[in-house]
Amino acid sequence: MGFSASIEKLIEEFEKLPSIGHKTAVRLAFHMLRLPEEECEQFANTVIDTRKNLKYCSVCNNITDVDPCPICANPKREKEVVCVVEDVRDIVQIEKTHEYNGVYHVLNGVISPMNGIGPNDIKLKELMTRIGTGEIKELILATNPNVEGEATAMYISKLVKPFEIKTTRIAHGIPIGGDLEYVDEVTLAKALENRTEL
Amino acid sequence: MGFSASIEKLIEEFEKLPSIGHKTAVRLAFHMLRLPEEECEQFANTVIDTRKNLKYCSVCNNITDVDPCPICANPKREKEVVCVVEDVRDIVQIEKTHEYNGVYHVLNGVISPMNGIGPNDIKLKELMTRIGTGEIKELILATNPNVEGEATAMYISKLVKPFEIKTTRIAHGIPIGGDLEYVDEVTLAKALENRTEL
Repeated sequence: MGFSASIEKLIEEFEKLPSIGHKTAVRLAFHMLRLPEEECEQFANTVIDTRKNLKYCSVCNNITDVDPCPICANPKREKEVVCVVEDVRDIVQIEKTHEYNGVYHVLNGVISPMNGIGPNDIKLKELMTRIGTGEIKELILATNPNVEGEATAMYISKLVKPFEIKTTRIAHGIPIGGDLEYVDEVTLAKALENRTEL
Repeated sequence: MGFSASIEKLIEEFEKLPSIGHKTAVRLAFHMLRLPEEECEQFANTVIDTRKNLKYCSVCNNITDVDPCPICANPKREKEVVCVVEDVRDIVQIEKTHEYNGVYHVLNGVISPMNGIGPNDIKLKELMTRIGTGEIKELILATNPNVEGEATAMYISKLVKPFEIKTTRIAHGIPIGGDLEYVDEVTLAKALENRTEL
């Protein structure tokens, strides 16, 4: 005997989650079963409700509960500067810096021929429509610094060229608090190449 | 801005789970939001349903969907040998060995004065009732080899003394595949003390 069928099913559901292996799934399942029934229902209902009420901002494609999202609706944000990110979570990361006052555009992915994701599978058309309005002056390409992210940034910069918009890429270099000894050579080369005058 | 209120709530729900920190909670929440709505509902409903249909075996206190549980109902299992464990998960671990053919008793905890858990807070009374029927010949105390587990085992063995039941404790020693160099000295002392003749 392993667990009873219904518990096995619960464990399987938890195992489907990313970064959750079998042992953690067992622990989580039993945690759920030990919770008071109301708390357990509250958890499950939050999952269902949040998923049901999920909306995407019609302007920037951010996840939101109002449309347009608070960032796009904020009159204090510069609408001429658009930061292009892969994922909604990247917005949160950038917002945490308190350094950026423009708006965003969420691609919802990157071009990745290996995974069969082409330019039409991410929100590029929507970006071009926004650019077409002529409101945008600068495009900051903040896709991740990996093969797909770089390729997507390159692709977008070429696509945007005819519009005479300033297109920038976030800087690559040594992270603050990092150690030269442990930085990989590609990053170090980039850091040297993009050195700034003091 | 962090996330929108409803997403924050979902992240909080995931953060309440054991061994899930903030970053993992964010990842899980966004995973949920990206799932097709049916799969998301299936996950949540499995949580609710399993919790609702949860039953405890009236004999051994195992989690089950039928009462008595498949182990207690199995006529091939020796009902005279009862293995006392802290937790339902321990049953699964012992069953995996395929070496044990008796039945179980789940205490649902251990005596732990530090945490305010006394003998009346675990399923000890139920164990004594089972012993009172006179059916049980051997009690294997398989609580964990830590302070609370040892104390609980001692407590039960004293409680059971008047009944003239064979009471045994699972062996402590060096794990198979272990290395003398890395074994702590208490375990090593136990392994020496309980050495067996070849």
